[in-house]
Amino acid sequence: MTTETSSGTQEFSTKGAYVTGGTEFKRDTNYITTRITADGRDGFPVEPGRYRLVVARACPWANRAIIVRRLLGLEDVLSMGICGPTHDKRSWTFDLDPGGVDPVLGIPRLQDAYFRRDPEYPRGITVPAMVDIPTGAVVTNDYPQITLDLSTEWKAFHREGAPDLYPEHLRAEIDEVALGIFKDVNNGVYRCGFAGSQEAYDKAYTRLFDRLDQLTARLATQRYLVGDTITEADVRLFTTLVRFDPVYHGHFKCNRQKLSEMPVLWAYARDLFQTPGFGDSIDFVHIKRHYYVVHTDINPTQIVPDGPDLTNWLTPHHREELSGRPFGDGTPPPPPIPSEIVPADHWVPLG
Amino acid sequence: MTTETSSGTQEFSTKGAYVTGGTEFKRDTNYITTRITADGRDGFPVEPGRYRLVVARACPWANRAIIVRRLLGLEDVLSMGICGPTHDKRSWTFDLDPGGVDPVLGIPRLQDAYFRRDPEYPRGITVPAMVDIPTGAVVTNDYPQITLDLSTEWKAFHREGAPDLYPEHLRAEIDEVALGIFKDVNNGVYRCGFAGSQEAYDKAYTRLFDRLDQLTARLATQRYLVGDTITEADVRLFTTLVRFDPVYHGHFKCNRQKLSEMPVLWAYARDLFQTPGFGDSIDFVHIKRHYYVVHTDINPTQIVPDGPDLTNWLTPHHREELSGRPFGDGTPPPPPIPSEIVPADHWVPLG
Repeated sequence: MTTETSSGTQEFSTKGAYVTGGTEFKRDTNYITTRITADGRDGFPVEPGRYRLVVARACPWANRAIIVRRLLGLEDVLSMGICGPTHDKRSWTFDLDPGGVDPVLGIPRLQDAYFRRDPEYPRGITVPAMVDIPTGAVVTNDYPQITLDLSTEWKAFHREGAPDLYPEHLRAEIDEVALGIFKDVNNGVYRCGFAGSQEAYDKAYTRLFDRLDQLTARLATQRYLVGDTITEADVRLFTTLVRFDPVYHGHFKCNRQKLSEMPVLWAYARDLFQTPGFGDSIDFVHIKRHYYVVHTDINPTQIVPDGPDLTNWLTPHHREELSGRPFGDGTPPPPPIPSEIVPADHWVPLG
Repeated sequence: MTTETSSGTQEFSTKGAYVTGGTEFKRDTNYITTRITADGRDGFPVEPGRYRLVVARACPWANRAIIVRRLLGLEDVLSMGICGPTHDKRSWTFDLDPGGVDPVLGIPRLQDAYFRRDPEYPRGITVPAMVDIPTGAVVTNDYPQITLDLSTEWKAFHREGAPDLYPEHLRAEIDEVALGIFKDVNNGVYRCGFAGSQEAYDKAYTRLFDRLDQLTARLATQRYLVGDTITEADVRLFTTLVRFDPVYHGHFKCNRQKLSEMPVLWAYARDLFQTPGFGDSIDFVHIKRHYYVVHTDINPTQIVPDGPDLTNWLTPHHREELSGRPFGDGTPPPPPIPSEIVPADHWVPLG
């Protein structure tokens, strides 16, 4: 089902050093692969109010789940806990919440939910994580499966007008496109930034921009990556593109051009950013703060750049001139629920 | 005479750490201020063949002297030694020369010339340095004075058609403009990059871009900074602008925009780059290698970015539509002498 078989989020885990000298960056590929399904075959059936999605707005892998949950209108049946932008060596924390404790799970650190699942949990504490509220234990942190399951297993609870982000007849194509995006773009930027040798960096850089050139050709004549509506593939590309200029271009040395210097991808990204569910999930302050503060082995001073100017995300994109219907036969989601609105000064005020 | 009274080049010295936590970046302002003059009042009269200008193409402060020497046609009377792009904790070295020894001075390390001047020389070994060939001792490393003296004290040896880069009736204005450029731009980028606190960085960033905005307003309607010809002020601004996108934007977090996103300054910089004496002094490989390899306290991996694409330096600038005569009543310099041509693959091939 998942297209990202050798994947991971340990740069959004809390394992310490990111760069290993002399080598290329390799992900920890071990996840808790228990699934929450309609039939409950792993012991965790889809149930309204039973699970909590724990995210950090900084994290591109968690950002996928934030977007998909909102596009599908699952806010009322699947609550969301939001960790702060930085973490220490042990865990992501709920430092944004009153008293530093998640109001539903009653824990200060996400690791507490991992240790409920496995007191000896040996790997990094990653977001996104789906937590079983009654037991307080993590069910899964297998992020590529989480969003697909929201689309396919949680269907009974989708809002009216929810788009089909993973339509059956397009799954093979979505999987294929998403795999290339994962290897060379989503993970590719990390392979640039955490390269332990010039050779590993050069290789990752070439693959990243070759893939972006290929995606540019694809998106020059069609509004979305697969079919004529927004799909899971667009969600996955968007979460990396939106971080490109504020973080990856400088911090990860992905600097052939800025996104804003690649006209097709830049218009594509702005189109999605200006679509309900995408831009309103973005917290640029958290994003910048996370990367520049946490990765002390590539930014020892922990100073966060004041640039770039991000107001350009709001400029007209003209992508509606291409064919394409963002939500297909569905409708855009309503505005975010009040408790999930990103502070205006963390974002680009729309209009 | 000099406009840069509290200045320095110790980031192009070899003093070790660049960032001091909790503080702003401060330059060592002590130079060897002996002057080489027409009347020889400091014991060092201008004499053809007597002195050697030691530079590194990576260094913006040395770059000024490379450009001025060439615009004035002093190559035959003042030879030039070129250090490699990186240095160790002790000294810049002549690692580009056969056997790693400067062919004129016969030394492997620039510090040897400093120690001839003062066996206890306590400060960083900086470029540019003017060395007295007969004794092998550094005469001066006071870089803002060096270029002014090339213009004013070496006049008898200027080529026919040499421009007047420091005309008497414009000196007050050149000094004033150059002082603002020095404080907020030339040194300002270092104050961003080597800031030891977020507060110091924020302050430097604001001053840098405020000054660039001010320079943009000035250059929107006039081709050069002062008067209608190239002056010392343009040389001093150019050497920072040319390094902006390859280094300062990412490495020093000067990232409100790239130079290439600031249309007036970008056209101004391209105009100069395409003027004989400017672009042909630039070695982008040395520039990138220097900053990213030497500053291990802000780039511990020492990985050198592959971007940005620099071919855009050759695009038309249209600045000739403004009034202005690059060399005034003079003429452009002839091509560089063969031993000083920057390898084509270190540069942007012109045409």
